Amino acid sequence: MILSTITKTGDGVAANAWSLSAQDVAEIALGATLLGAGGGGDPYLSQLAVRHCLQSGQSVEVIAPEDLADDACIACLAGFGAPTVEAEKMQSSAAMVYALRAYESRFGRRIDALIAAEMGGGNAIVPLLAAAETGLPVIDGDGMGRAFPELQMTSYHLNGVSATPFVLADDHLNVVTCELGAGAPEKMAEAFARSATIEMGMQAYIVCYLMTGAQAKRAVLAHTLTLSRVVGRAIAAARSDGDPVRRLVHLLNNAMQSQAAIHLFDGKVTDLWRSTEKGFAKGWCQLEDLKGSGATARAQFQNEYLLFSIDGVSRAMTPDLICLLDRETLQPIPTPDVRYGQRLAVLGIACHAQFRNAAALQVVGPQAFGFDEVYQPLQQLAPGSGSR
Amino acid sequence: MILSTITKTGDGVAANAWSLSAQDVAEIALGATLLGAGGGGDPYLSQLAVRHCLQSGQSVEVIAPEDLADDACIACLAGFGAPTVEAEKMQSSAAMVYALRAYESRFGRRIDALIAAEMGGGNAIVPLLAAAETGLPVIDGDGMGRAFPELQMTSYHLNGVSATPFVLADDHLNVVTCELGAGAPEKMAEAFARSATIEMGMQAYIVCYLMTGAQAKRAVLAHTLTLSRVVGRAIAAARSDGDPVRRLVHLLNNAMQSQAAIHLFDGKVTDLWRSTEKGFAKGWCQLEDLKGSGATARAQFQNEYLLFSIDGVSRAMTPDLICLLDRETLQPIPTPDVRYGQRLAVLGIACHAQFRNAAALQVVGPQAFGFDEVYQPLQQLAPGSGSR
Repeated sequence: MILSTITKTGDGVAANAWSLSAQDVAEIALGATLLGAGGGGDPYLSQLAVRHCLQSGQSVEVIAPEDLADDACIACLAGFGAPTVEAEKMQSSAAMVYALRAYESRFGRRIDALIAAEMGGGNAIVPLLAAAETGLPVIDGDGMGRAFPELQMTSYHLNGVSATPFVLADDHLNVVTCELGAGAPEKMAEAFARSATIEMGMQAYIVCYLMTGAQAKRAVLAHTLTLSRVVGRAIAAARSDGDPVRRLVHLLNNAMQSQAAIHLFDGKVTDLWRSTEKGFAKGWCQLEDLKGSGATARAQFQNEYLLFSIDGVSRAMTPDLICLLDRETLQPIPTPDVRYGQRLAVLGIACHAQFRNAAALQVVGPQAFGFDEVYQPLQQLAPGSGSR
Repeated sequence: MILSTITKTGDGVAANAWSLSAQDVAEIALGATLLGAGGGGDPYLSQLAVRHCLQSGQSVEVIAPEDLADDACIACLAGFGAPTVEAEKMQSSAAMVYALRAYESRFGRRIDALIAAEMGGGNAIVPLLAAAETGLPVIDGDGMGRAFPELQMTSYHLNGVSATPFVLADDHLNVVTCELGAGAPEKMAEAFARSATIEMGMQAYIVCYLMTGAQAKRAVLAHTLTLSRVVGRAIAAARSDGDPVRRLVHLLNNAMQSQAAIHLFDGKVTDLWRSTEKGFAKGWCQLEDLKGSGATARAQFQNEYLLFSIDGVSRAMTPDLICLLDRETLQPIPTPDVRYGQRLAVLGIACHAQFRNAAALQVVGPQAFGFDEVYQPLQQLAPGSGSR
């Protein structure tokens, strides 16, 4: 039994371990689509695949990071590329497992447990699917508490864990590995992964950020799989309300404690530009105020929504979460799915506190994406907050 | 003693083995610069490094491919990228050796001997330098008998040896590896290697085409290191002649038997365009007839000279060799070194017979580089050959 070797208690049943139900998976997928802030890929097919595994008698054990044995060996598994191509290139659990096995054989390490790179969209589900296929447990946590587009944009990196060595595999079972030389910046790992993924047709699976249990306790944003499930439940519960957006914001603020959610805008999509370039889905969408005030809002994205402004005034910035939802169904809208005419609510959600210091903002702040804006927290950008 | 395990005789002294002298290295470097047909990189610094090793007491043993034991393990080692950047990024024997060791550790194979990917320019010397540093012997042969720009353009590939798994390493000791999935085209290996090399600053070392001695006997173009030395000696001998170009053509035709050399043109460089794009040095140069006939010639290149025409009529095409030399010194001019005002002789040299069948021409013929021309052998393109 693997659990007995990687949890502190050693009795095979970790204090906070739980076994995923099919409903858990559906709720996590829904919640992670919101937390993905437009990115992370569409979880629809991969969550169906996990639920199919569970119905076939396979199981997925979830372990809290604080219960890990210090010498357990944890690796990230994630889809990598541009979510735009998912309509053409479906998730491949064979490629996920192939990447894991290639990692183990090429670098001589046995992986004890999987963790998500990002708790966003399909990438919240990818480790669950590989876990169902392999019997490996999954850690309740991730490296972003949301989705970001680049490999180095993680709490793992900010806490000194390298993304390399990494293994990339695609659905043709082509495998590319990378090890950085001493002193090479982590952004080189992103560059190697991105260029190989472009050759792989924009979609690959990456095994990276190998860490010990001791490192994971420092570097992991804990309990974000649970948070996804809570958010998914909140969305489902708010749907039946007469004012679903307001109800959802209320539930999120109850559930997330420090991570305040703010309802920023209601608009109809009136213009849209997108381009798949350098392995990313880049672009922006424009929304006009549904109440007829004439106000115009814009959300700029690179896989994820990164900057949201109303009449040219910034109202939310990465690393805070910018989430676009259908106003009626509360379905979160990933960036590849924004369409002309959609009537959307825009929510801002404060990012994890780890990402708000100067060192983190160099990696995930607006300027890391080439924007001129200097990061200001969501709450300070609100009209009447007194700080502007 | 490594030789005893990889040669058929098993006595440590193969029938056709020889030990490189410093003069051999200089002659090989000069000959391979001609055979490089404009590509393969500048051998100047790497041949100095090999000669320094020899003067320091290291040695390089050369083995004829026919003397290999069938189970010997041979690998290609080559510089990879665009030769344009060599002025800024010097050869790194540490990176070469690092790539070899990474190959052995990641893929669990011990490499017994090295061979060149191409007998062109610096890539004729790279295996010699790594051999001097490691004590490994070098095979007298290569996979092109010239230089070509892409990884799959080899007799190895045409004889069923895959370029993958490969290892790329750069001078910062970043390492990227690649294994293709079953059925993936070899051009995918080129695509992965090229994109990683671009991230490495356009220059890396590749270890690839692992093969057994038995495979090498089929797939290697034999004795081309010796041929390079012969060509280098011919250039040196012809320099002192009153009509050096004519003398060189005479010596080459004596030395190369089936590979006829033709003196195609004498011209002054009057126009030049170059661009470093997608990891290649692409462009063309234009020459005006030195005799004042008004004839204008053009050589198009992608790392190597690939197509040569006079007044719009093709006179030499890849895979035949197109070689530009200084008319006075007979110094072969690699594509990065062509300059306005140079007075050059243009030679055509018939390629190895292996490259003239239909299957080979799909890999190395004009259309493999996007030209419309259908390959015609050098001799048939000569005016008055009767076949045009």
